[in-house]
Amino acid sequence: MTRSETAARFAASAGARDGAAVPGPAFRDWWEGRPRSGAFEVTRIPFRELDRWDFDRDSGDLGHESGRFFTVEGLRVDDGAGTVRTQPIINQPEVGILGILVKEFDGVLHCLMQAKFEPGNLNVRQLSPTVQATRSNYTRVHQGNPTPYVEYFHGPARGRVLVDVLQSEQGAWFWRKSNRNIVVEATGEVPENEDFCWLTLHQLRRLLLTDNLVNMDARTVLACMPLARPQEAAQTSTDPFVRALLRSYDAVDDAPEARNTLGEVISWLTDARARCEHTTQLVPLSDITGWTRSDDAISDDSREVFQIIAARVRAGNREVREWTQPLLAPWQQGLAVFVTRAIDGVLHVLVRATPEPGLPGAIEIGPTVQRRSTADTRAADPFAETALTDDPARIRSDVVLSEEGGRFHHAQTRYRVIEAGPDVPLETPDGYCWVTVGQLMDLVRHSHYLTIEARTLLACLHALW
Amino acid sequence: MTRSETAARFAASAGARDGAAVPGPAFRDWWEGRPRSGAFEVTRIPFRELDRWDFDRDSGDLGHESGRFFTVEGLRVDDGAGTVRTQPIINQPEVGILGILVKEFDGVLHCLMQAKFEPGNLNVRQLSPTVQATRSNYTRVHQGNPTPYVEYFHGPARGRVLVDVLQSEQGAWFWRKSNRNIVVEATGEVPENEDFCWLTLHQLRRLLLTDNLVNMDARTVLACMPLARPQEAAQTSTDPFVRALLRSYDAVDDAPEARNTLGEVISWLTDARARCEHTTQLVPLSDITGWTRSDDAISDDSREVFQIIAARVRAGNREVREWTQPLLAPWQQGLAVFVTRAIDGVLHVLVRATPEPGLPGAIEIGPTVQRRSTADTRAADPFAETALTDDPARIRSDVVLSEEGGRFHHAQTRYRVIEAGPDVPLETPDGYCWVTVGQLMDLVRHSHYLTIEARTLLACLHALW
Repeated sequence: MTRSETAARFAASAGARDGAAVPGPAFRDWWEGRPRSGAFEVTRIPFRELDRWDFDRDSGDLGHESGRFFTVEGLRVDDGAGTVRTQPIINQPEVGILGILVKEFDGVLHCLMQAKFEPGNLNVRQLSPTVQATRSNYTRVHQGNPTPYVEYFHGPARGRVLVDVLQSEQGAWFWRKSNRNIVVEATGEVPENEDFCWLTLHQLRRLLLTDNLVNMDARTVLACMPLARPQEAAQTSTDPFVRALLRSYDAVDDAPEARNTLGEVISWLTDARARCEHTTQLVPLSDITGWTRSDDAISDDSREVFQIIAARVRAGNREVREWTQPLLAPWQQGLAVFVTRAIDGVLHVLVRATPEPGLPGAIEIGPTVQRRSTADTRAADPFAETALTDDPARIRSDVVLSEEGGRFHHAQTRYRVIEAGPDVPLETPDGYCWVTVGQLMDLVRHSHYLTIEARTLLACLHALW
Repeated sequence: MTRSETAARFAASAGARDGAAVPGPAFRDWWEGRPRSGAFEVTRIPFRELDRWDFDRDSGDLGHESGRFFTVEGLRVDDGAGTVRTQPIINQPEVGILGILVKEFDGVLHCLMQAKFEPGNLNVRQLSPTVQATRSNYTRVHQGNPTPYVEYFHGPARGRVLVDVLQSEQGAWFWRKSNRNIVVEATGEVPENEDFCWLTLHQLRRLLLTDNLVNMDARTVLACMPLARPQEAAQTSTDPFVRALLRSYDAVDDAPEARNTLGEVISWLTDARARCEHTTQLVPLSDITGWTRSDDAISDDSREVFQIIAARVRAGNREVREWTQPLLAPWQQGLAVFVTRAIDGVLHVLVRATPEPGLPGAIEIGPTVQRRSTADTRAADPFAETALTDDPARIRSDVVLSEEGGRFHHAQTRYRVIEAGPDVPLETPDGYCWVTVGQLMDLVRHSHYLTIEARTLLACLHALW
């Protein structure tokens, strides 16, 4: 099957307003029927109550006695201009699987989504990919139950692979973490499971704009799906923004409608990466400065960045088990914004070459505006005012979504898509570039172009028609 | 200009049998007229005679007192299955420029190539890109003369960028090194310089098959140039291999003539990367084991891998200067082979997912067979016999080329393109994949897909029609 054929099938699913007859209950019934509370209990604990996790006597690094899962280590960042800073960072070298199983019902592709509990979730369960598992999980280092459906993504019996690409995650919090974003089409019967539900892309597009519902792992996989311009919607919409957005799906590679060719976009990113003089280095956690470790937290002294905390989890569902683990808890809600503008009737997104110390390539393509803490707020940002506009005519989406609840505690980001006008000039300042939606999808086919926040925003763009 | 238009212009240059009237003497006259000996003198010296280079008292790392250029550090490689080994490795975090300036003469693109001396060259000068400069070079840390033509590649006054992508270099010898591969088209007059000469791609294709003439830096930039199927050659060739090769240029992305779609190739590489359990870590050079440092060399005790040595260089040309530096000297000639086979009349290349400890993504797409030392020779290799065939009917090219002479001393690799038949089955063993030439060119547009050896072999394929 060619990529454009696959993209057309996803587009049909994204436009499928009438749900097909799929196995199991309808989404709302199913979702409301998932146990919310009681089944899971998360308690913050002092570090000394962590079970099988400990601080290394020499390095001070926080790790699991098996040597697996992840460690919290120190990171030293030298900006190349004489400023050095340090911070804790999560080092998780294993490549995990974020996989969505898809299947046709009545000729329409449906995604098998999971109601998944994660200890850092602020609302117990979120809508997650079919499989979301570290290698330690699915090779059963934790000796829990096997991960449902993992056999579709892993090993010789897997289904037809439609997407399969490594993508980075938060470079401010993770050291060079990559996960495998996979979409696999099941060719035979798929067994039912009460924690899973089949949804069209049309349904998922709607759910994506609900606060704290579709989790980060689901969003990044959705963003990696090829998606053609949905023909029907393009003909019926009267909203100039939507018409420009839909035209932008066709503006791939070096289409004349794109302000920059894809080659120019790649060159712009290459230039930013080549000029980046940041150097980064893992160091012992006990060597970092400006952070204080107490009985129950490692915190930056300014209380702006994040804390490392510990939690005890009791999961009392079918898979009865209890465990403890560290979590990274940001102090504040983050912000990630795509400022967009129609250029000659084609929507363009203003992206930024975003340096983050933990990214494998030092810089990836990120949102126009991004903040993780009030420390970021103090830096001058030419597009902050546009990004934070309260003009309802310009706010195309504004949703608060959660970051990975398996590692981060109550980490929320406000994601906005803003429609700008001529007040945002076509000439871009250093470090910014106009790209089309089609070009973002050209790039997300490959590893390490789009940051995790840019991928969430790309998925949000899909929800706007 | 679109990428396909650029590819067609390069194809015209590659097919331009009649040289156009370009400034300066013809290639042979120019090349023979370059000073060969006398002008440069390279002497091996003991480490204590290195000037401004020294071993760090604590770590034992070998570095320059400025903190720039590069360091020789230790590398620890854990294969995830209990085996740990260590080695020295060159750490050069700066991103350098490998740039070829092109310009149309009589409607045909020409490349401005340089006769460049490098201390590790076994034959003094090799044919090099227009600019081959580390950031330390072109920002003039060495206080030498400015790099000629660098202004075309760097800064606001540069010409029209046709290619601009970061690519890795030897992952067994360099720690996460990337260089910027750039092709820029000059739009105005270009001043002449006696060490530089304008050549068509047709001329360069011929010169590429001459032993130790076209250097590594030129080869990687040539491999990154988009190149369309040359129409004229396709019609005239009667050689089935050449006809299959030329058809392979058209088999891009998910063309039906390709045995695997590009998506399947990306998924195959993603799988290999996800399963890779190697972990690597820089360590103090004094902590490595199995290597011995004497007065004038750091050598592996088995004398199979490489040595780190020191050299004094006296360059007595126009730019009179003298310097000392470390070099990495492999003990043996390397081997890199593309085994190819026509599948339904379209040439396919059997590539291997090649792990190297210094690669940023741990694994890139490499040759079918590759060896850097006799240690590699001992590993079982299903295609070694095919790769080393002495059947002249199967050997499509066989050339000994040099690796980067600025860091490596007399490092040569034997590059072969082999035409295989049904003795190499279409079903591939784990870690191998059939790809078309068009797909290799799809991939080399992006960073970190093809190893430096695979890129040299891709350039060699261009020379075979």
